[in-house]
Amino acid sequence: MLKLYHAEPVANSMKVLIPLHEKGLDFESVYVDLHKFEQHEPWFLDINPEGQVPVLDHNGFIVTHSTIINEYLEDTFPENPLRPGDIHERARMRYWNKFIDEHVMNHVSMHGWHRMVRRVAQALDKDEFEKMLERIPLKEQRDKWRTVAGSSFTEEQLAEATRKVSIAIDMFEKQLGQTKYLACNSFTLADINAYSHCGMMAERMFPELASRDKTPNFLAWVDRVRRHPGVQKALAGPDHTNPALRTFSGEAT
Amino acid sequence: MLKLYHAEPVANSMKVLIPLHEKGLDFESVYVDLHKFEQHEPWFLDINPEGQVPVLDHNGFIVTHSTIINEYLEDTFPENPLRPGDIHERARMRYWNKFIDEHVMNHVSMHGWHRMVRRVAQALDKDEFEKMLERIPLKEQRDKWRTVAGSSFTEEQLAEATRKVSIAIDMFEKQLGQTKYLACNSFTLADINAYSHCGMMAERMFPELASRDKTPNFLAWVDRVRRHPGVQKALAGPDHTNPALRTFSGEAT
Repeated sequence: MLKLYHAEPVANSMKVLIPLHEKGLDFESVYVDLHKFEQHEPWFLDINPEGQVPVLDHNGFIVTHSTIINEYLEDTFPENPLRPGDIHERARMRYWNKFIDEHVMNHVSMHGWHRMVRRVAQALDKDEFEKMLERIPLKEQRDKWRTVAGSSFTEEQLAEATRKVSIAIDMFEKQLGQTKYLACNSFTLADINAYSHCGMMAERMFPELASRDKTPNFLAWVDRVRRHPGVQKALAGPDHTNPALRTFSGEAT
Repeated sequence: MLKLYHAEPVANSMKVLIPLHEKGLDFESVYVDLHKFEQHEPWFLDINPEGQVPVLDHNGFIVTHSTIINEYLEDTFPENPLRPGDIHERARMRYWNKFIDEHVMNHVSMHGWHRMVRRVAQALDKDEFEKMLERIPLKEQRDKWRTVAGSSFTEEQLAEATRKVSIAIDMFEKQLGQTKYLACNSFTLADINAYSHCGMMAERMFPELASRDKTPNFLAWVDRVRRHPGVQKALAGPDHTNPALRTFSGEAT
């Protein structure tokens, strides 16, 4: 039995929803409402003490962290592979995954927190906010909430994050001028990772970096990824975010 | 033909030297002298434009980043495996690898830069230093050099790094009370990663966090890992670091 605890189809949740759909696996979807901070509730912390989605439960075996979950799915369900059989392509896939995990995700995310989560934090009253904070297990997460509830990230921090996103988009553009997908000519976990954390929101969030003129290969790849049936199915999942706050998932910038 | 470009047997270089030896693979060792900044020389940048060791060259296919290299070695040379066959254990191995790569390595490294690389940076004259800096391709690396050449990391940054190392050592201690090695009862890439970036220097660099009294399981595991033939062979490799500066690899703290 496969069960996925996840939030909206964007970022890390999206990154695991896509392979589950694309591989045609039957799974139970458990929506965790981040707007109600369900990820910090005791029932969820029993499953993942870090208080983070997504989490995969496979016959009682718990896997956390989206990159690890996706490799686990490939190890466990090798049919309809999203990990290349060729060892060179596989190494390139892992190179991109590592790059996205360590040098892209947090920088796009910082802008998301600054533009979107900040408004959520500032809408909470002081008591509510402190109560919510107390329940967050990871200090790094508590720090981010405090930052956006206060004066938010500095201009310097945001500029540095933009610089990192810019480097990433340039690297994607260059690679996608050479191969149809990031690691090779077939769709892999690297594309799913790059799309979920950067591709799906880049043109909207960073129009100065990603545009049809400037990065045609990158945006043609975004379209190509979006057309995959598993991506379409994942995108059709529930989105409970206030539309005005859909910096990541919707129309907001 | 396998060729490894590497520096001293510590940290990322150590992390790849161990599997090569432990798996009994024939490889050509190319020592890159970081003390002479050979990693920034044009001949090396042709191989790895990021200017970082280690780099694996397998019949002309270049693999960078130690975690990726080690998975590549398992994919390519499955005999004498250091990646578990059991998919649960394999997921746990990757969980630890990710944790060490993202939440341990840089924090131990910050103390190494503060205690050791700072002395190297401060011994260079201004012109030499600026010339060296100019050739570093990654901004992050240039920033670190500037930081240690100047007033170094702040007390707050160092304390936060120590906090992260402390959490890691506590997690290792707890896990090693349950299993002989980190991911399971056999020696895997997770142990090699944790040993190379934390285990081999923890008792010397962080005596307040790692001691025979406080963390007996962790230090018994350090001894157990050190006795592996591949680790012994890797440790016997050349170390050109001034013994007074061997914070990572030797006697200095």
